[in-house]
Amino acid sequence: MTSEFNKTVRGMRDFLPEDARKLRFIEHIARETAELYGYDEVITPAIEYYELLAAKIGEENRKRMYVFEDLGGRKVALRPEFTASVARLVATKLRSAPKPLRLFSVGSLYRYDEPQFGRYREFWQANFELFGSAMPEADAEIISLTDRFLTKVGLRNYHFKVGHVGVLRGIFSHEGIDEEKQNSIMQMLDKKEVEKAINLMRETKSSGESLDTLKGLLDTSGRDLNSVIEKMRKIVDGYPSSVEAVENLREIVALLKDGGLKTGILLEAGFARGLEYYTGSIFEVYVPEMNIALGGGGRYDKLVEIFGGEKTPAVGVALGMDRILIALEKQKTPMRYNIPKRLLIIPVERSMLGEAFKLASMLRDDGFCAEVDTMGRSVTRALSDADRRGIEFTVIVGPKEIKEGKVILRHMTKRRQMIVKLDKLSEKIREESD
Amino acid sequence: MTSEFNKTVRGMRDFLPEDARKLRFIEHIARETAELYGYDEVITPAIEYYELLAAKIGEENRKRMYVFEDLGGRKVALRPEFTASVARLVATKLRSAPKPLRLFSVGSLYRYDEPQFGRYREFWQANFELFGSAMPEADAEIISLTDRFLTKVGLRNYHFKVGHVGVLRGIFSHEGIDEEKQNSIMQMLDKKEVEKAINLMRETKSSGESLDTLKGLLDTSGRDLNSVIEKMRKIVDGYPSSVEAVENLREIVALLKDGGLKTGILLEAGFARGLEYYTGSIFEVYVPEMNIALGGGGRYDKLVEIFGGEKTPAVGVALGMDRILIALEKQKTPMRYNIPKRLLIIPVERSMLGEAFKLASMLRDDGFCAEVDTMGRSVTRALSDADRRGIEFTVIVGPKEIKEGKVILRHMTKRRQMIVKLDKLSEKIREESD
Repeated sequence: MTSEFNKTVRGMRDFLPEDARKLRFIEHIARETAELYGYDEVITPAIEYYELLAAKIGEENRKRMYVFEDLGGRKVALRPEFTASVARLVATKLRSAPKPLRLFSVGSLYRYDEPQFGRYREFWQANFELFGSAMPEADAEIISLTDRFLTKVGLRNYHFKVGHVGVLRGIFSHEGIDEEKQNSIMQMLDKKEVEKAINLMRETKSSGESLDTLKGLLDTSGRDLNSVIEKMRKIVDGYPSSVEAVENLREIVALLKDGGLKTGILLEAGFARGLEYYTGSIFEVYVPEMNIALGGGGRYDKLVEIFGGEKTPAVGVALGMDRILIALEKQKTPMRYNIPKRLLIIPVERSMLGEAFKLASMLRDDGFCAEVDTMGRSVTRALSDADRRGIEFTVIVGPKEIKEGKVILRHMTKRRQMIVKLDKLSEKIREESD
Repeated sequence: MTSEFNKTVRGMRDFLPEDARKLRFIEHIARETAELYGYDEVITPAIEYYELLAAKIGEENRKRMYVFEDLGGRKVALRPEFTASVARLVATKLRSAPKPLRLFSVGSLYRYDEPQFGRYREFWQANFELFGSAMPEADAEIISLTDRFLTKVGLRNYHFKVGHVGVLRGIFSHEGIDEEKQNSIMQMLDKKEVEKAINLMRETKSSGESLDTLKGLLDTSGRDLNSVIEKMRKIVDGYPSSVEAVENLREIVALLKDGGLKTGILLEAGFARGLEYYTGSIFEVYVPEMNIALGGGGRYDKLVEIFGGEKTPAVGVALGMDRILIALEKQKTPMRYNIPKRLLIIPVERSMLGEAFKLASMLRDDGFCAEVDTMGRSVTRALSDADRRGIEFTVIVGPKEIKEGKVILRHMTKRRQMIVKLDKLSEKIREESD
C-alpha cells in the first residue's frame, strides 16, 4: 500500500465528534424549518446520470463534476447540487402531486474545486424548493425561510444579496444574443470578470445603448431598496422584459419588508450566479466574517420542463452547512444542542456484569447516557477513568447491594457516595445533579 | 439527451416524502441509541482511497466497489462500508483518544450488487463501533445496543444469528492453511457453498480429522445455547485456539442472557461473514418475513493496526436502514414520528400578504407548520385546496380584522369559523383541535 492510503483524499474532510455534533445540529434546525414551513423531505441518490446533472448547471460547475462509468458502462456522476435531482422527481414521480409542492433535501454533494478555506470537494447542503408558483410571494417565502433558518442556528449579522437575472437577460435577448452567449456572459459576471463580459457583448454587435445599460446596471447596488429599484427601473427603460423583471423584484422586496425579514438586503442590479437554470430572482447570503456565500438560490421556471415534466415555475435555496458551521465558529456562537448526562456503571466483579447491563438499560429508558465499563477495570481504575473524563456520576454494582435491590451512587466531583434503591436511582441522580 | 436521463440510475433509489420520513425516523432512533450508549458520531467522506477501502473487505465486496480516478488522477472509491473509514480515524486523528472509544456513523454506502428485493446500489447504514476493549462485555454491548435500537424502531420477532470466526480459523490455522486460503474458504461458507469450501480444504492436504471437525461444526446450530456451546466445545477439542474461541463465545452469550436481551439467539457454529477483517464473534439480525440480514457485525481486532495505528481490539455493528424500513413495512408497524399540525394562511387580498407572512412566522414560533398561500388564489379556491389536502385549520387574513388585531380562524372539517385575537390564536387552535 502507498504511505498515503490512510489519509483522507485531498479535498475530503472528516468531522470528528465535536464538528459532527455541530453539523447535525445545523441539519436538525434545517429539518425543523422544513417541517414548520411545510416542506416535505425527499432523498435522492448521490449518483445520477451525467446528462441530468450536467444539463443546466453551467460550464464552470460542469467541468468540476465527479464523472465516471459504473460497472455497467453507464456515464454517471456524483451530484454537485440537489436541484437537478429534485426537478427530475417533479418531472416524473411527483408529476401529478398537487401544487404548490414544497420539497426539502439535505446531504453531501461533490465538486472538484480547488480546496481552500470553506471549500471542500465533499460539502453539505440543506435545500428548500417550492414548485408550482410563479408569484413573488413564493420567492419571498424562500428568502424568509432562509432568514428564519439562519436565525435559529444562531447566525448573526448576515445579509442577503439580491438580484434578478431577468434584468440582464432582458437586455441580452432584446439585442438578439443567443442563449449560449448569454450564459457565457453571465458566467463571466458571476466570476467578476466584468471587462471580459463587456468585451464579449461588444463582439455580438450589441448596440452602444445596451452596453451603456449593462454598465449602468453593474454600477447600481445598495441597501436603500426603493432608491435602487427606482434607479434600475430608469436604466432599463426601453427593455420591456427587463422592466418586468425590475417590477417583479420590487414586489419581492416589498413583501420581504412587510413580512418582517430579520436582516438586511443588499440589492445588486448586475448580480449573476453560476448556475444556468435561473430565470428570475437570485440571492446569496453573506456574513462580514467571510467573503464566500453561505448559501444562495433563486427562481428557475424552466428546469422541470427541460427534464420532461410539465411547465412548472420553481424557486429554491441551497444552504452551505459546512460554511455556516465555520461562520458560527467565527462568531463564537455556542450551539444549543442537548447531550444526555453521561453515567459510568462499574461492576465490582465480573459476575455483576449482567446486572450492570440491566441497570444501564433501565437508566437509558430514563434518558441517561449509561456506559458499562467494558475494559475489565478494577473499581478504583474505573473511577479514576471517570474522573479523568469529567463524568459526574458513577454507579457501582456489587453483589451485597444488588441482593437488597440497591446500588452505590457516587457523585464524582463532590466525592460523595450513597446507597440507593434501584427504583429511586434516576430520581436521585436528577436530585443530586449540579 | 438520451431518453433515460431523467430516470434514476439502475440500483439507485428515490425516497419520496413518506419513505424519507421513515428513513429519517430510523436514523433518529439510531442517533438516540448512540447518545444513550455514549457513542460519539463521526462523519467521514464518501470518497476514500481505493486501497483503504479494499484492504480487508473481502474479495466479493472488492469486486463490487465503485472505483474511479478523480480529476487529479487519484484512485479512489465510494465507501462500501463505514468500518474502514472509522478504523482509519482511530489509527490517525483519534490515535491518542482515551479507550474505550465508542463511535457512531450513519449515511449512504455504495456497492455494485445485482439489484434485488431489499438490495440497492446506494444503501443506508447506522454503524456503531467500540474500540479498545478485547473483553466479551464489549461484544455483548454491541449486540445489546442493536437489540435496543431494533426494539425502539418498533421491529418485532427478530433474532440474532451468532457465531465466532475464531472457531473455524482455529482449525484452519492448526492445519497450516495460509490466510489467503482461509479467506477463500470463509467466503465460500458465507455464500453457503459448503461443498466448494470442503473441497478447497481437502486440496490443502488438511487432515481427515480436521475435515470431520469442519463438517461437524457446519452441522451444529440451535437456540438451546448451552447445549450448542457444549457440542461445539466437544467437536473442537484438540484445536486449542478454537477451544478458546468457543469459551469466548460462551462468555458473550452468557452476558447477553444475564443482561436481559429482549430477543432470541440462534447459535451457528459454522457461521461465516463476507468481510475479511473479522477475528472473533460475528452476528447477523433476521426477521421471519425476510431472508436477508437486516444488519450484522462482529469483532475485528487487527484492522486499526493494519491501517498504521496501535494494536486496538474492536467490535462493531452495521445496521441496514433501508432493509429495516422494509421489515417494518412488512410487519405493518406504525412509525411514531410527530409531524407538526399544518395550517394554511390565506390573505383575502394581495395587500395582506405581508401580514400573512408575519402571522405565519408567529405560528411557527408556536410550533405549527404554517403555509402561506403562494398561488395567488381567491379565498374560495384556497379553502377548497385546503379541504382537498385534509388541512384542519385555515387562517384568513383580511384588512378589517387585521386593523383590530384579529384574524378569521376556520375549522375546515367542522365548517365553522370564528374571529380570534392574534395573541390568542395558537391557544385557540390547540383548543379547537380534534
